Amino acid sequence: MKIGYIQYNPRFGAVDENINRAAVFIRSVSADILVLPELSTTGYLITSLDEIEELAEEIPGGKTTEALAGLARERSCFIVAGLAERSGGNLYNSAVLVGPEGYIAHYRKLHLFYEEKRWFTPGDKEFSVHDLGIAKVGIMVCFDWYFPESMRILALKGAHLVCHPSSLVLPFCQDAMKIRCLENRVYAVTANRTGSEMRGGKRFDYTGMSQITAPGGEILHRAERDKDAAIVVDVDIKKAENKAVNRYNDLFADRRPEFYGLITKEYRF
Amino acid sequence: MKIGYIQYNPRFGAVDENINRAAVFIRSVSADILVLPELSTTGYLITSLDEIEELAEEIPGGKTTEALAGLARERSCFIVAGLAERSGGNLYNSAVLVGPEGYIAHYRKLHLFYEEKRWFTPGDKEFSVHDLGIAKVGIMVCFDWYFPESMRILALKGAHLVCHPSSLVLPFCQDAMKIRCLENRVYAVTANRTGSEMRGGKRFDYTGMSQITAPGGEILHRAERDKDAAIVVDVDIKKAENKAVNRYNDLFADRRPEFYGLITKEYRF
Repeated sequence: MKIGYIQYNPRFGAVDENINRAAVFIRSVSADILVLPELSTTGYLITSLDEIEELAEEIPGGKTTEALAGLARERSCFIVAGLAERSGGNLYNSAVLVGPEGYIAHYRKLHLFYEEKRWFTPGDKEFSVHDLGIAKVGIMVCFDWYFPESMRILALKGAHLVCHPSSLVLPFCQDAMKIRCLENRVYAVTANRTGSEMRGGKRFDYTGMSQITAPGGEILHRAERDKDAAIVVDVDIKKAENKAVNRYNDLFADRRPEFYGLITKEYRF
Repeated sequence: MKIGYIQYNPRFGAVDENINRAAVFIRSVSADILVLPELSTTGYLITSLDEIEELAEEIPGGKTTEALAGLARERSCFIVAGLAERSGGNLYNSAVLVGPEGYIAHYRKLHLFYEEKRWFTPGDKEFSVHDLGIAKVGIMVCFDWYFPESMRILALKGAHLVCHPSSLVLPFCQDAMKIRCLENRVYAVTANRTGSEMRGGKRFDYTGMSQITAPGGEILHRAERDKDAAIVVDVDIKKAENKAVNRYNDLFADRRPEFYGLITKEYRF
């Protein structure tokens, strides 16, 4: 099956324009599952609560979700994309999963990065895995990668593929994803954005280099830093079901959960 | 303070000779904490239960622990070294921590690799952290690195430094340790062995490249593949207490343990 990403440069606040740009890329490839960046239709560098309240959308029902569902139907594929969600008076840094039949699920970022804490409520739903028939997919957003618990839980829940919308500014994630995929024996698609945003006296330079990583830690494709692109690779998704390192070691059967209790405790040191 | 490793090539079964070789290296440097490889005085490539039963020692009280405690006293340092332990009819792939006052603690490898499962009982004690006054140190052995839970727990328990005796044959660990140190903001000393062992029709080639890694993921020193060496670097150990990524993010305070429950469950998929 074919998994891929759209790497592009959303313009802040220009939701319609950004959806149209994404649509051009989505229509340019044939894929089963495509991943778009974090906050893919609003842009990332928020400078006030007012502006993101204005831009945030309901999921499902909002403009971005509806447009992506239309594209998923048109292209007979699944799409995972980051977007700002408004729900019950809260804002979330979310990612939606849509398919040919429309909205399927969405995830609310559990580990907020930097000033996102000023605008968004931390996610309040568990990491979850969705059986699409062709593959079981999990979702995490950008900074979630830093916490090994994120992908561990998605992998333990049976994910073949972790879809990872991102707006990366730090240089570590792409190399770290090799280890995340190795330690969990799953595929991952990290869809990063390109370009710079200069707003409210701040400047963010995004690192591009979107990446498709395989269960052995192999980088199947890494994008350039500055070039917008839609890239798809063919993978044997069932490889992610094999957790064997050798004939004695299975990465999941070998875990010692009875000794991992501290991981679920509050940090109180 | 000064942390370092001894990278050398133990000869299988030659415990006295191996202790003497280690002693030469230990005496060649001035260090506060030194780490030796896994199964550092027996050699690694076991071919029968009889031979490892014969070689395994009690901890404390056995020859290796006593010799290392003598060296720690002589050199006014702490030493962590891997060795085969015999206890109550079981054998463990253990690592001992000794200091100027003698035996302090030992750890029994929780995640056994490959044929180790034929010879050793999996560890039955929690990952624990020892306050040496100059630093809080945790211990894990070789393949434990593959499981992110290992270093996460040691870091959550307050370790500044993870001492990591190893006999690595796979090529991933050294790069992975950058991510392990980054995600936990701790120092690590991975002491690997050199050379090859050919016994009972099997051959293991060890990858050397012992490594000292800093909380930002920086490699402070990486040894050559084939050269025996005693290497010490000066570190500001207190850096490991700072879990801040930026002024909004603290890696431990930002964890969401209420969503990590699956990590402590048995794998039943």
